[in-house]
Amino acid sequence: MKILLIGASGTIGSAVKANLSQRHDVISVGRQSGDFQVDISDSASIRQLFEQTGRFDALICAAGSVNFVPLADMSASDFSLGLHDKLMGQVNLLLIGREFANDGASFTFTTGILNRDPIRTGASAALVNGALDAFVKAAAIELPRGLRINAVSPTVVVEAMHSYAPFFRGFKPVPASEVALAYAKSVEGLQTGQTYIVG
Amino acid sequence: MKILLIGASGTIGSAVKANLSQRHDVISVGRQSGDFQVDISDSASIRQLFEQTGRFDALICAAGSVNFVPLADMSASDFSLGLHDKLMGQVNLLLIGREFANDGASFTFTTGILNRDPIRTGASAALVNGALDAFVKAAAIELPRGLRINAVSPTVVVEAMHSYAPFFRGFKPVPASEVALAYAKSVEGLQTGQTYIVG
Repeated sequence: MKILLIGASGTIGSAVKANLSQRHDVISVGRQSGDFQVDISDSASIRQLFEQTGRFDALICAAGSVNFVPLADMSASDFSLGLHDKLMGQVNLLLIGREFANDGASFTFTTGILNRDPIRTGASAALVNGALDAFVKAAAIELPRGLRINAVSPTVVVEAMHSYAPFFRGFKPVPASEVALAYAKSVEGLQTGQTYIVG
Repeated sequence: MKILLIGASGTIGSAVKANLSQRHDVISVGRQSGDFQVDISDSASIRQLFEQTGRFDALICAAGSVNFVPLADMSASDFSLGLHDKLMGQVNLLLIGREFANDGASFTFTTGILNRDPIRTGASAALVNGALDAFVKAAAIELPRGLRINAVSPTVVVEAMHSYAPFFRGFKPVPASEVALAYAKSVEGLQTGQTYIVG
């Protein structure tokens, strides 16, 4: 399979690449690094990416930014990054990417634990994750040509605990390699409309 | 209690008013009708509303628009209405309204069944509902002064079936009066961070 992996240099992306590149042609995409670059918050940049990569069998997005701000300090503008980047960025990867997707291709997005198990400063992240989990479930039933869409919703990963530990006290971290399994299940399995919870 | 009811003239709003006005001072707010007017997609309009109503003990929003479009025809712009109106409109009712909320006041938002049980053309509605259910859960743990926040997630209501039936084949509709009970539970109970599913 020809797999486009957005966020390939990240903690999760690296583990996904290590897993899937054993069996597939994984093309690394990053904001600045990788074989190709994309800013997922910009529709024109997304279209340009696909014009460069050509058709594909699977797209994985392990990228997406949100702001972490105490609710007491939040105004509407603090939600913009999450809405335009992690949320609509991934939605647009489907809306635009489907034109370049081979029959039966899969889209796998990344959400996260914070809509299921919220933390301080996590209101925007929770909102975005909940939106994506729901979008994946709803979009799946309308996709033609055997196209599939799933989400992976990991808890905090071991490799990120050096910086995230204070925000995730009491959370049991999982190794990124374990999170990568869920992406493999999404890409190499046949399910659609699922959110794979890891951790 | 002094209760602000946004969307008071709608199918669900009318039923909520009929229920709660038996025991409380319910102030009706609408886009064009009611005691006061608001456009929830406009932060300035929301602030103006609260400056007119003054402090309150409960806010209920039974309003919020999204586009229903087949996924095949959707581009990012089809998501804008839902993001700015039903989603961020309700989020902003909390972010701005909390300044005018008495200690222990509650916020009750309206989501809907489509993130749990999706239909054709419902991808934006599902996304918005999932986002709101998650936001409510996450925001609840950060609210000060005993402020509470819940969502009500109804299936299609009997009174709307004359126009919605073709979109909701096989769904069991519930009377709006039954949906109204969930708003009463949210306002008059003590729970927070909940999504009350009706139907």
